[in-house]
Parts: sequence; structure tokens; C-alpha cells
Amino acid sequence: MDYEKAQRGVRLLLEAVGEDPGSDALAETWQRRVPDALETLTAGQREAEKPTMRTFDAETTDLVVKTGIPVYSLCEHHLLPFFGTVHLAYRPTDEVVGLSKLTRYVRWQSRQLTMQEQLTNDIASGLEAELDAATVFVEMNATHLCEAMRGVETKSTTTTRATVGEPTEAERERFRAAVKRAGGQR
Amino acid sequence: MDYEKAQRGVRLLLEAVGEDPGSDALAETWQRRVPDALETLTAGQREAEKPTMRTFDAETTDLVVKTGIPVYSLCEHHLLPFFGTVHLAYRPTDEVVGLSKLTRYVRWQSRQLTMQEQLTNDIASGLEAELDAATVFVEMNATHLCEAMRGVETKSTTTTRATVGEPTEAERERFRAAVKRAGGQR
Amino acid sequence: MDYEKAQRGVRLLLEAVGEDPGSDALAETWQRRVPDALETLTAGQREAEKPTMRTFDAETTDLVVKTGIPVYSLCEHHLLPFFGTVHLAYRPTDEVVGLSKLTRYVRWQSRQLTMQEQLTNDIASGLEAELDAATVFVEMNATHLCEAMRGVETKSTTTTRATVGEPTEAERERFRAAVKRAGGQR
Amino acid sequence: MDYEKAQRGVRLLLEAVGEDPGSDALAETWQRRVPDALETLTAGQREAEKPTMRTFDAETTDLVVKTGIPVYSLCEHHLLPFFGTVHLAYRPTDEVVGLSKLTRYVRWQSRQLTMQEQLTNDIASGLEAELDAATVFVEMNATHLCEAMRGVETKSTTTTRATVGEPTEAERERFRAAVKRAGGQR
Amino acid sequence: MDYEKAQRGVRLLLEAVGEDPGSDALAETWQRRVPDALETLTAGQREAEKPTMRTFDAETTDLVVKTGIPVYSLCEHHLLPFFGTVHLAYRPTDEVVGLSKLTRYVRWQSRQLTMQEQLTNDIASGLEAELDAATVFVEMNATHLCEAMRGVETKSTTTTRATVGEPTEAERERFRAAVKRAGGQR
Amino acid sequence: MDYEKAQRGVRLLLEAVGEDPGSDALAETWQRRVPDALETLTAGQREAEKPTMRTFDAETTDLVVKTGIPVYSLCEHHLLPFFGTVHLAYRPTDEVVGLSKLTRYVRWQSRQLTMQEQLTNDIASGLEAELDAATVFVEMNATHLCEAMRGVETKSTTTTRATVGEPTEAERERFRAAVKRAGGQR
Amino acid sequence: MDYEKAQRGVRLLLEAVGEDPGSDALAETWQRRVPDALETLTAGQREAEKPTMRTFDAETTDLVVKTGIPVYSLCEHHLLPFFGTVHLAYRPTDEVVGLSKLTRYVRWQSRQLTMQEQLTNDIASGLEAELDAATVFVEMNATHLCEAMRGVETKSTTTTRATVGEPTEAERERFRAAVKRAGGQR
Amino acid sequence: MDYEKAQRGVRLLLEAVGEDPGSDALAETWQRRVPDALETLTAGQREAEKPTMRTFDAETTDLVVKTGIPVYSLCEHHLLPFFGTVHLAYRPTDEVVGLSKLTRYVRWQSRQLTMQEQLTNDIASGLEAELDAATVFVEMNATHLCEAMRGVETKSTTTTRATVGEPTEAERERFRAAVKRAGGQR
Amino acid sequence: MDYEKAQRGVRLLLEAVGEDPGSDALAETWQRRVPDALETLTAGQREAEKPTMRTFDAETTDLVVKTGIPVYSLCEHHLLPFFGTVHLAYRPTDEVVGLSKLTRYVRWQSRQLTMQEQLTNDIASGLEAELDAATVFVEMNATHLCEAMRGVETKSTTTTRATVGEPTEAERERFRAAVKRAGGQR
Amino acid sequence: MDYEKAQRGVRLLLEAVGEDPGSDALAETWQRRVPDALETLTAGQREAEKPTMRTFDAETTDLVVKTGIPVYSLCEHHLLPFFGTVHLAYRPTDEVVGLSKLTRYVRWQSRQLTMQEQLTNDIASGLEAELDAATVFVEMNATHLCEAMRGVETKSTTTTRATVGEPTEAERERFRAAVKRAGGQR
Repeated sequence: MDYEKAQRGVRLLLEAVGEDPGSDALAETWQRRVPDALETLTAGQREAEKPTMRTFDAETTDLVVKTGIPVYSLCEHHLLPFFGTVHLAYRPTDEVVGLSKLTRYVRWQSRQLTMQEQLTNDIASGLEAELDAATVFVEMNATHLCEAMRGVETKSTTTTRATVGEPTEAERERFRAAVKRAGGQR
Repeated sequence: MDYEKAQRGVRLLLEAVGEDPGSDALAETWQRRVPDALETLTAGQREAEKPTMRTFDAETTDLVVKTGIPVYSLCEHHLLPFFGTVHLAYRPTDEVVGLSKLTRYVRWQSRQLTMQEQLTNDIASGLEAELDAATVFVEMNATHLCEAMRGVETKSTTTTRATVGEPTEAERERFRAAVKRAGGQR
Repeated sequence: MDYEKAQRGVRLLLEAVGEDPGSDALAETWQRRVPDALETLTAGQREAEKPTMRTFDAETTDLVVKTGIPVYSLCEHHLLPFFGTVHLAYRPTDEVVGLSKLTRYVRWQSRQLTMQEQLTNDIASGLEAELDAATVFVEMNATHLCEAMRGVETKSTTTTRATVGEPTEAERERFRAAVKRAGGQR
Repeated sequence: MDYEKAQRGVRLLLEAVGEDPGSDALAETWQRRVPDALETLTAGQREAEKPTMRTFDAETTDLVVKTGIPVYSLCEHHLLPFFGTVHLAYRPTDEVVGLSKLTRYVRWQSRQLTMQEQLTNDIASGLEAELDAATVFVEMNATHLCEAMRGVETKSTTTTRATVGEPTEAERERFRAAVKRAGGQR
Repeated sequence: MDYEKAQRGVRLLLEAVGEDPGSDALAETWQRRVPDALETLTAGQREAEKPTMRTFDAETTDLVVKTGIPVYSLCEHHLLPFFGTVHLAYRPTDEVVGLSKLTRYVRWQSRQLTMQEQLTNDIASGLEAELDAATVFVEMNATHLCEAMRGVETKSTTTTRATVGEPTEAERERFRAAVKRAGGQR
Repeated sequence: MDYEKAQRGVRLLLEAVGEDPGSDALAETWQRRVPDALETLTAGQREAEKPTMRTFDAETTDLVVKTGIPVYSLCEHHLLPFFGTVHLAYRPTDEVVGLSKLTRYVRWQSRQLTMQEQLTNDIASGLEAELDAATVFVEMNATHLCEAMRGVETKSTTTTRATVGEPTEAERERFRAAVKRAGGQR
Repeated sequence: MDYEKAQRGVRLLLEAVGEDPGSDALAETWQRRVPDALETLTAGQREAEKPTMRTFDAETTDLVVKTGIPVYSLCEHHLLPFFGTVHLAYRPTDEVVGLSKLTRYVRWQSRQLTMQEQLTNDIASGLEAELDAATVFVEMNATHLCEAMRGVETKSTTTTRATVGEPTEAERERFRAAVKRAGGQR
Repeated sequence: MDYEKAQRGVRLLLEAVGEDPGSDALAETWQRRVPDALETLTAGQREAEKPTMRTFDAETTDLVVKTGIPVYSLCEHHLLPFFGTVHLAYRPTDEVVGLSKLTRYVRWQSRQLTMQEQLTNDIASGLEAELDAATVFVEMNATHLCEAMRGVETKSTTTTRATVGEPTEAERERFRAAVKRAGGQR
Repeated sequence: MDYEKAQRGVRLLLEAVGEDPGSDALAETWQRRVPDALETLTAGQREAEKPTMRTFDAETTDLVVKTGIPVYSLCEHHLLPFFGTVHLAYRPTDEVVGLSKLTRYVRWQSRQLTMQEQLTNDIASGLEAELDAATVFVEMNATHLCEAMRGVETKSTTTTRATVGEPTEAERERFRAAVKRAGGQR
Repeated sequence: MDYEKAQRGVRLLLEAVGEDPGSDALAETWQRRVPDALETLTAGQREAEKPTMRTFDAETTDLVVKTGIPVYSLCEHHLLPFFGTVHLAYRPTDEVVGLSKLTRYVRWQSRQLTMQEQLTNDIASGLEAELDAATVFVEMNATHLCEAMRGVETKSTTTTRATVGEPTEAERERFRAAVKRAGGQR
């Protein structure tokens, strides 16, 4: 990331809204805090920060389902956060991935300027490639601050899903049921 | 809207129920407030106020589902509000619509004198035309004050649904599940 | 209703349990209150009190579902109340009925000496005739005081359903889902 | 109870509302079922059916609290049931009463024609006499069918309380807290 | 009520928003339905429709609390409904009022053009006069459609309370606790 | 607001994170959308946009409580949103303010770069000045995205309160109870 | 039941655990209370105490479902209670059984030394015989004190089901849905 | 425990209710299972099985509160279980007890034939002695099967409390609050 | 288990993190407590500690379902606990297993160093062998402390399932429904 | 931390329980993963890793309350995790601390071998020193795996609190209320 440009950009925004970037309260805002936050929140655009997906042997070919993964991302149109929960599943072949890696991968992917529809797809196709899995399900439920804190000023939930591979009807049903049970975690 | 007629109408209603339209408390009621409110609440009858439905490229053809959109409308028989929640979904082709536009469209459509059955249909067929979408689902759950605050004086929930296009069974199931999960938002 | 017979009947019951019908506290009980209540609670036996079912044009042939209608009736064996909730649905042809009429019809039908199984059937077949609807669903969940306040002294829920016409599987599913969501209203 | 008078009374009521007391469905209604039910539901008017309050030695002078006792009674004005929950407490001196006796006593007292305000008082003063207790608290929350199934046709909750003796502030607080926790049992 | 003026007023409003008052769908709207509704919803302005408050002897001077009374009223500034729940209590002297009368009184009072703060006060002082009660508590929680369906388009809850007389601290605590328990009924 | 500076600032931020501001997807982001959003979200810094606080006569000096007002603001250190719920109360003297004005005032105040502790204070002292009220309570519960979506990556709730004037203990208790009941709205 | 043997048995158990059967506290335990309880709790082993299953004419062949019947039984291996809830359904032919009889039958059957799997079967086949019903469903959810209060000292739920006859898929679905809705009653 | 007497006792009970103690299903019931269970469930009568209360140094004199301890005991009158939850607290002086010891102590004490009032007292005074604590609070909420599965056949909750020492008002309040929060664990 | 090696290992770990194993507070930690705990928590690796699976005759071939079994295990990669709930089912042939044995078996299996995917499989195939059952379902929902208390520091739920045999669709549906109902026990 | 000692210690533990530390599955367990985890989980013993507590000017001296901070720690007796939630509050003087710092401080303190009673105290006195605050409240609710997954094998909640300074009664009440509202977050 071009840190200096980020500093200049934030400084301009502060001036634009009539704040004094030289004040005690705001000096670190543009010198350090916002640029740092921006760097973190765009990690998903840098391949080098992608988590490695370590796998282990396991005697199972049943769907592994992980629900309730918190997700935070930035809407590329208003640079405001959207956030919610991801539920996902994959069918392991001979190996299973370390469970925390699934969470790390979602976090990494979500840290970029994007749209929810696109991000859901990117997680699903990305995991398929990483895990060499025949089947991947991803469902995301999110609230968008660009809707809630300005504009229509209304809070609703957007649900997107992406499916990779050719899951059986039984697998679809299992994912559906796990997502339903995790409903309260939204 | 014919503002002056609205003023006269409200004034007559106040007189009809024995109130004094010239009193301090009620002067603005007929001069400004009710006519203004009426103008807002009938925006859906004026094509010019229809929100524009800006779209964006996205690599997805999976159903986009939006649940928990608040809806308020006026029953054309008693001019009393009915209100509740709309859940909807559409299948994007090459583009997705800005998410807040779905909420805006529902709000615009609901601002007219109508019946719940008709409004549900109007939102579904309107969205299909706007989005050029092959499939649209709309479900509305509402309480009607014309039932609750007079007449039978009983509160129940009316549920209506409209489907446009030829959704697959899997899409029907996804919409059903999302609506079920959003149940608590009614 | 034969008001005078009702008065004599209540008076006898008071005497039977050792109360003095002439006392200040109980005079109006047999002279006015119980006969009045009885008249109200048997309105469903008098065709003349049936609500008229006014309909309106609407562009919809989707199922209209109404859930959470409160219902109170009298068990014909113990003359004790049973009560709970009715959920119903019908498929309109070219017209929809005023929504409050559905509630009024359920209230009217339930005001007679009957059994839950019979009442559920009567509402379904009655609505079919009134609305000339091809499909009607009625589900009733009720608690019976004849079980709860005496006898087995145990509270459970009895669920009955009646279906008129030949609904599609999709319509059955929609009714099922709406009833499920309304579960908390029992 | 004068069983024969009860039979005649019920028979008159059936005739009053236009039913045939000789029909198969209704014969037992007036011959056996309603008179039996009436006998049960007025047991509280007959001293002979009062439960005996057996006590046991116990090393405790702390308040014993019993929450969530179901209660069903008959309103003396409309002969319709009112029902809900009783919470009570007493301070034992050297002996505690068998716990089920408290429930039995509430049941017995509630089986008469009465008003909620009166019944609450009767239970409190009755228990004080039976248990020779220095302090008794009784709280009743009830719904009245004479309000809900006819008349205003509206369901609300009526709460009454009676206190006998001179409880300490700490005892009041304990009863309050136990009732609050039992709130969900209403 | 001046029925003919009401008809003319509604007719003008329909014309003002561009509707045709002569159409099949709307003819009864201004000829019959809205004037009727208006008459009902302003009953509280007509003394003649005030319910009579019949009382009964009872051995109790403890607070009688009634929670969860539904309330619907019309905001005098926008003629839009506000609605919610009333909880109230009074200390009887030698007599208690029929419980349904409390509900009827709240319903009658709420049927006028008013503000929530004023209505709460009117119910409290009105009940004091009717019941000749030394202490009356009234609490109202309401949602205002003039806020929710237009304007700020935001739903919040407004809570008002009025107290008449000089209640003891114990009585205040009892009312508070009963209102808290009834919280879920809002 | 200096719109052109805002455009330049956003453009720099996009470049800093390696995005192309000239792309189709992002052109409007810096040209229109983010500057517009920024203007809205800093309205609280511009006195001219403060809502007028229209009042009405009312016979009440009891606390008026408003709970469940949604609030969204921007943390001045990371320019990330924090949001949650405001509950507030004031004691009217001879006049009450229009209820929606309270919501509008909270919204206006929250639209600036600030800290939760400061914002809570600003709302309380601002309302006191606007309403000329002797007593104002403000409580805010919020989640901060600068904690949740980066940094400690942990979601907790921060609660702040400000009190202006000398409320009585009874008023404190009423506010406490209303906030408690509104707890589920957090 | 051999009452005297029961007395001797209980006396021996008291002695075995080192209690004095002659003490004031325990005399009635073996002389009267435990033998009485045992007699009640084994009523299901005595055909003579089986409730009669009175039926009535009704125009319905739809499934009648009864959920939330409390059940208490004794595990034949540890003589400790297991308890929970029974849900059941049957398809009436020309007659329906009095609803309280279903509860009575479950109570009678459960009062014996048995296992949950066996008891579920016994209720289903017993009801089929009693009602001459073509289809009977029984589902039981129970907690076993032999697991919870000793041994593994862990509380879990055991679910058993028995189906008699050849129900249609629609009937299976209806029973499933009713049981699901009654889930909270476990 | 006198194992052989226990065997004889159980055998007699089986014979009393008409079962064959020699059958395959029941042989182990009297030979092994019930005597074993009885031994476990009366451990609290044997001092030797009392858990040792190991303590550790800690810099705290604030109340340590433990909520949600499951408790199962046997009613000495019917030999049927009563069970529920214990909440307790103590003020440590220089040392704190291992947390699991509190649970073990409650379990040990509850394993005897007793009454809830007595057991609550025994736990409180026992802990005071064991921990040499100046203040101990114990609250027990329990359901009694002797009420629920026979007799009044009604389920309610009995709450007992015992306090040892002279707690401050602040300590009472803390225990109260912790118990309230643990309410859902009942 | 090699107890002495375990002692040495724990001692080394204490030294590694800079603690003094000779201190009063920690002496028993390595001498007794951790080695004991380790022995318990690896019981599943020792065949000799496997519970015997005693069976009984029963007239049932319907699925027996057991939900809500608590499970605690150790992740073999970080030696940190993962825990949650197991739901399972099996179809008995001529005999049913003692219900507590299912819980014991799950507990035994889970006490080893393993992964959730593997453990789920081991329970399913182990039960099949023990019970000679044609069909076994096992579902496990767990939280992993290696994710929650370090690393991604995020709590989500992992769901795994294993199915042995060829269950019918009806059996799959029954297991699914029972698991769904037990959802709240997670 | 002495990394090499940690490796040797883990290796010994694996050998002690009969595992092969040289196996593919376990090599990294002792070489890297457990030592790393241990280092993280004992950070609280190293002053150098204490977070800096940056403060900001703010016009507030009202209590700042932060609820729902997740906490994970290691019990110094069994080296098993205990975890739950911390709620805390402090009274700022002229400056407020960055909100995320409170969470960071709790996390840092909890990462050591300790007891819940001690940890609660350490957080309170540590924060007082760091913030130079006159008043600090800390409450911790936790579950201990050393109780739940072995030993008594029972899950309960332990609640500890520490107070530093001389808070007013109003401040105590505010903290109590905030903790109560956060109850569901436990």
C-alpha cells in the first residue's frame, strides 16, 4: 500500500469536512490510524497475505460444515462497511483442512473493496481451488451500512449464496439444515 | 397533488368530528402537516418519483435475497395504514442492482392507496420490468389497522406472495429458507 | 334465543350450587349477564348474524394466507370454552375478500356449541361456499378448558385441519410455512 | 349440590339457545357432564372438601416460596372461567407444610363463583389460618374469558396481591424476585 | 358527527391525490367506510359514549393492576395512528370496578385526536373521577406512525406515565414490577 | 463542505490501496458517492442543518421517555462507524416537543466525527438548551467497528450516560426501568 | 397390589440406608405414602383401570393431532422416573374420541415399570385397538433420571416414535409439523 | 449401607406390584441396579463420603458466587426425586475454595432422604463450617415429582433460601442479581 | 499412562513459561492434578476403559434418537479442548441398549487426542460394531478453543456428521427433525 | 519463554499418554503448535506485552461502561481453560481511554496461569493504576473446563466482582443495570 498517499487522502477528507488535521485530536487520525486501518482492511487484495491452507489426513468424506463465521468487508461504492455472518461447507477427499483456516480465508477474502454478491462468489471459488474440494457451499447474510446509516436509512438483511461443484441433494439438505440452526447467530 | 384540495378536505374532516380548524393546535394540521404527509404517502402514484435502478457487473447468477424490508401502505378502503415486512429475491443475469435500490423500490410502490394482494403483485411485476430479471419472488406479511383499531378490533397477520418467471425448485427452497430465517423480523 | 328460559336456567344453576340468586352480587348474573353472554356465544347458530363477505377486484391468483386469528368456542359436552388460534388460506379467482371478513367469519362460526374437529370443517366448507374459492385451508390449535380446569386437569394442544379443493403441492407448502412462522402466536 | 336442579338448569339453557336436549349428542351434556363439572368447579364452597394441611418439623424460618401454581376459577358475574397463575409464600415457624398442600389449597379455594380480587384475599387469609403463619403473600395473574371471548373481546392480564402479617422488607424483596423470575410461567 | 361533511372531506382528499372518487373501488370509501371509521375513532370526544363504570363489593384495598391493554389513537397533528399498550392500576376503597370496564374506558378515551402525553393524563384523571379512587397509575408505550411511515421514518417507543393521588412506595414498586413483567406484551 | 477536496481525498485513498479510480466500477465512488455520503455523515457539524424543535401545549409534567432511537456515528480516530441505540427522557414544563424531533435531533448530533462519550454529552446538553428542560437523561449503547472489524477484532458493547439537571430519585427509576424494558432493542 | 408387601419392602429399604422407620418423620413413608404412590404409578398394569374411550360423530377424516401431553413413567431397571412429553395423532373414521381420553390413555399406559421404547409402542398399538383407527402416530421425548441423577450424571433427551397403519406422506408431514411447533413444550 | 436388606426390599416391591423378580428383565433390578442407585443416592448420610474442601490463597474478599449447580435429591415422604438448581455464594477471608468443591459439596449433601427446606439449610450451615466463611447464601429452586407425577399432578417451582452470617446490603444485592441473571438456568 | 513422564512434562511446561514448580500454588499442579486430568482425558485411547453395552429385549424397530449429549475432547494439534453436543440415532433389531450407555460411549470415545471429523466417524463406526446396528447416525456441533482463545480468536461452530448403513429417507428425516428440535441445546 | 523446554515438555506429555511424537500427525504439535499457543496464552506474565493505554480529552465524568468482553484464561491448577465474559466500568477524570484498550487490557491480563478470583482483582487494580481512575468495577462470569470436562463433570457459572475506589450508589446501580442488560451475552 502507498502509505503516504493514504495519509494525504485522509488529510484532504478531514479538511473537506472542515476539521483541522493539525489538531491534537486528529493528528494521528491521518498520520497513522486511518492509513493503518486501510492497510488491514485491504489485505485481501494482496496475494502475499493469503493464509496457507494446511491439511491433515482424516477418514471422512462427509461434508464438513462451519457456521457463524463473522465477516466484515467494505462496499466499493461508498467505502462503508457491510458485515454479518458466513456459513460454509466443503466435502473433503482424503484430507481435512485445519478448521481455523476456513475462518482465516474468509477474513482475508473479505478485506477488500467489493460487493456482497462478488465476495460470496470469490470465497466459494477460492476455497475450491485451495482445498481441491469437489463441493463448496458459501452463504453470507449481511447488513450494509451504506443503506442503514444514510440513503434509505433502513436496515434489512441481504442473503447471497454460491455453490461450486455438483453436490448431492442430501448434501444440499445438510447445509440448509446447518444454516437454519445457525440462524440465531446472524 | 392538488395541495389546496387536500387542505380543504382535511379542514372538512376536522369540522365533521367537531374540532375547530382555527385553533392553535390544529391550524397546521390542515394547512401543512396532513397535506404534506398525504403527498409523501401517495408518491407511488407518480411515475416521476420512481427510484432509478442503477446496476453493476458481478460474476453471479445465484439468487440475491433481501429480507426484512419494512413496508407501510394505505388501505384504499379505509385510508388507514397497513404495514409489515417484505422479503424479496431476484436472479441477476450479468448485473446486480444496488442493494438499497430494492428497498427504495418497495417504499415507492407501497406509497399509494391499494390492497395488500395488489401491492405484492405490483412490486413483483414492477421489479421484473425494472431489473429485466427472469425470476422475482415477493412475500409480504402485514397487519392492517382497519382490522385492528376498529371493526373486528383484532390483530392478525396477512401473508401474500407473488412469483414472476419460472424459478427452479432449488430457488424456491432458498427463498423459503431465507424467509423462514427472517421470521423474527416480522 | 329464548331469553326467559335462559334466565330460568341460570337461576336454577345458581340454586343448585347453593348460591342465592336474589343476592345483590348475583341478581344481574341470571337476569342479564349470563343470558346476554349466551346469546353472543351462540350467534353462529343463527344464519341471520352471518357476516356478508364483500369482495374486490384484484390481479392475483396466489394464495392469500391469514394467520393468528383468535378463536373462542364452547364445547358442546361440558359447555366450557375451548380457544386458540386459526390460520387459514384461500386461492382467490378474480376477486379478493375484505381481509377483516375472514376474521369475522371465523368468529361467527365459532360461536356455537360444537367440537373442534367439527368447527374446523365447518369453517373450511363454509368459506368455500361463501368465497366460491377453489381451495381453502383451515388449521386450528386450541386448548380445552374441559380438560385443563377439571377432569384430567392437564393442558395440551389439539391441532385440527381441513382442506377443501385440490391444492397444488406448492400451495400446501406455502400454507405450512406460514403456519410454522405464526407458531409463536398460538 | 342439588344435582337434579343442575340438570334442569342446563336443560333449560340448551333449549333457550335452540338446541334439542334429547339429541344423542347433547343428552349426556345435561344429564351428567355439566352437572358433574359444576360440582367439581364449586368444591371451594363446601368446607368438607378442604384439603388437610399436614405439617412436618424443619429447621428453617426462611420464607418458603411456591411459584407457578395454575389456577382456574369461575367469574360470578358471567359464569365464565378466569385462569392464570398463583405465586405464594409463607414464613414457617417450627413446621413446614407438605408442598403439594399449598397447590391443593389454591385449587380448592379457586373452585367457587367469585371475583379475582376476592379470591386472592381468600387464599391469603385462609392460608394464614391453616398454617398459623405470621406472614403470607399471594399474587395472582389471570386472564378473564368474560373479557376475551365476548364484550370488549380483548385479552389483558389482571394482577392482584394480598399480604397477611408484617413481612420484613427483605421478605418482600425475596417474594418480588421469585415472582419476577417466574414471570415466564404466566 | 357531521356525516355529510366527512363524506365531502374524504372525497376532496381522494381528488387531491388524483384518484377518481366515482370509481367502483373508491365509491364506498368516501360514501361510507372512512366516515364510519372516523365516527368510531372519535367516540372519545362524545361524552354520551363513555362506558358506565359498574362496581362490586370486595374485601380488598390492595392495588388492582391491569396490564397489556391494547390502545390505538390518532395523532392530532398528522391524523395518523399511534398505538401500543396501556398498563394501569388503582387502589379500590370498598368496591372494585368490573375488570372489562377498565379496558373499555381506555378504548373510549383513546378514540379522539390527541397527543400521547395528553391522552395518558386524561386516562389517569378520568379514571380517578370515575372510580373515586385515591390512587391511579397509567403507563403507555406507543409507536407513532407519523414517525415510522414518513418523516424520520424510524420506529422507536415513547413511554409516558401519569400518577394521580399519593401512592405509597410499596404501591409504586408493585406497579413497576407488574409493568416490567408485562414488558413482552409491548 | 469542500466537495472538490473530498473528491481528491477519496481518489488518493483508492490509489493508495492499488485500485484504479478511473475504472468503471470506481469512477462514481470518488466523483459522487463517497463525497455525498461524507456530506450527509457530517451534517452535525453544520448548525444550519439542526432540526427546529417545534413544541405543543400539554397538561403534563411527567417525564417523557423515548427508547430505541437508532444511532450511527463516525469515530474520529479511525473514521469507522460506531452505532447502536439511544434512549432518552426529558421533563416537559408547559410544552412537549413533537416526538419525531427527538429522533431528528439525535440523528443530527450523531452525524459528525466524535467519540461516544462526547456525543452522549453533546446530545444531553444540546437537548437541554433546545427544550429549556430542567431534566434530560441520555443513554447510548454502541458497538464500534474500529474494534470489531480490525484491531482487537472483538465485539463488545459500550454504554455511556449523561444526565442534565437535578432529577428526582423517582425520575431516575422511571428512566432506568424504561431503558431496561427496551433492552431487547439494543 | 399387595399393599402389605409394599409396606414391608419400603421399610426394608429405609433400614438398608440406615434410617429409622419408626421415627415420626418416616412412619407414614412406609405405612402409607410410598405404597399409595406405588399403587398409583403402576395403574397401567391393571386392565381394570384403563379409561373408557367414549366417541362422538363428526364429519371429519382429517388427522386429529394432540401435542404436549405430559408423561411420567418408571424405568424398570432402576425404578427411577423418566418423564417428558408425548405428541400423538390418529385418523378418525366416522367418530372422534373425546379429547381428554387421549391424555387419560397416555397417563394410564405410562403408569407401569417399562422402558421408553416399549412404552411408545404400547401407546401406539393400544390406541389403534381402542379407537379402531387406521393410522396412529406417537412420539415421546423424555429425560431419564437414572441417567441424570446418578451414573453418567448427564441430561440428554431420548426421542422415540411408533407408527401404526399406512399413513400418507401428507399425514406424516402434518404430524411432523405439529411436533416441530410443539417443540418448545418439551 | 445394608446391601442385602436393600435387595430384599426391592424384591418385595416388585412382588407387591405383581411383577416377577425372577424374570430376565427384572433380575438385575433388585439384585444390583436399585441397591447400587440407592447407595449412591444416600451418600450424603455418610460423613466418610464428604468431599474435602481444599483452599488456595487469593487476594480477594469479594463475594464468590456460583450459579446453576444442578441438584437432585429424594423426598423423604414419597421416596420420589425432587430436582432443580442451586445458586450459592460465600465471602472468602484469605483463601478461596476450589470451585468444583462447591458443586461436589452440594451433590453430596443432596444425596439423602430429606425435604427441600431442610436441605437448603443443611448446605448453608455445612458450607459455613467447612469454609469458615463469615457469610454464605444458598438458594434452591426445585420441582417435586411427588407433586408432578401423582397427587395434585401439577408442576410448580418451590424456592427456598438460607443465609448464614451477617451479609451487607451490597452483598445481598449482588447475590440477588446473580441469581436473577441465572434465572434461565432453572 | 506413564504417570511419571506426565509429571516431568508438566513441570517442564511450568518452567518454560517462567513459573516456579516448587511454589505452594503449583506443586500439586504437576505432581498430581494435570497428570490425573490427562489420564482421564485420554481414557478413549485405552480399550479396557470402554463401557460395556448392555442390551434389553424390546418390541421396536423404530429409530431410537438421543439428542443433547455433551461432548468434550482434545484437539491433537494444540492440546486445547473442543466441545459441544452430539446427537445420535440407531435402529435397534431385537434389542435396545441401555440409554445411558450411548452417553457413556460418546464420553469414552471423545477422551483422546483427535480431530472432530475423525471423532464423529469413530463414534459412528464404533457404535455400529458395538450394537450390531444396521443404521447409525452421529452429528456433532462443536466450538474449538484453539480457534477461539488464540489464533483467529473467533468463535464459530463446526458441524460434522457420519452415517453408517443404509437408512431410509424416512429415517433420515426423523433424525434431521430431532436434531433441529434439539438445536437450542447447542 | 523458554521455547525448547516447552517443546520437551509437550513431547513428554505425548509419550506419557502413549502417543508417538514422531508421527506425521503429532510432530508439529510439540515442535511448534503447543509451544506457540503456550507463549500466546501466557503473555500476561510478561510486562513488555502490556498494551499502552492511550487517552483522549472528553467532557465527561460519567461512568463509561463496557460489557460483553470475551475472556479466556488458564486455570493454574489443571492447566485447562476457563472462559466467559467480563463487564467493566470506570469513571474518567479529564480523559477517556480508547475503548479498544479496555478489551486489550482484559485480554492481556487473562493470558496467564491464574484463578478467576485473582484475575478479577488483577484487572480491577491494574486498570485503576493504568487509567488513574478513581473508580473501577470489574465483573467476570466464567465456566471452568476443569469442572465441566472432568471431575464433577458439571457446568455451572462462577461470578466474581472487584471494585476499586469509592463509587456512589448511583454508579453502583448503573453498573448493575448495564451488567443485567448484558446478561444474554454470557
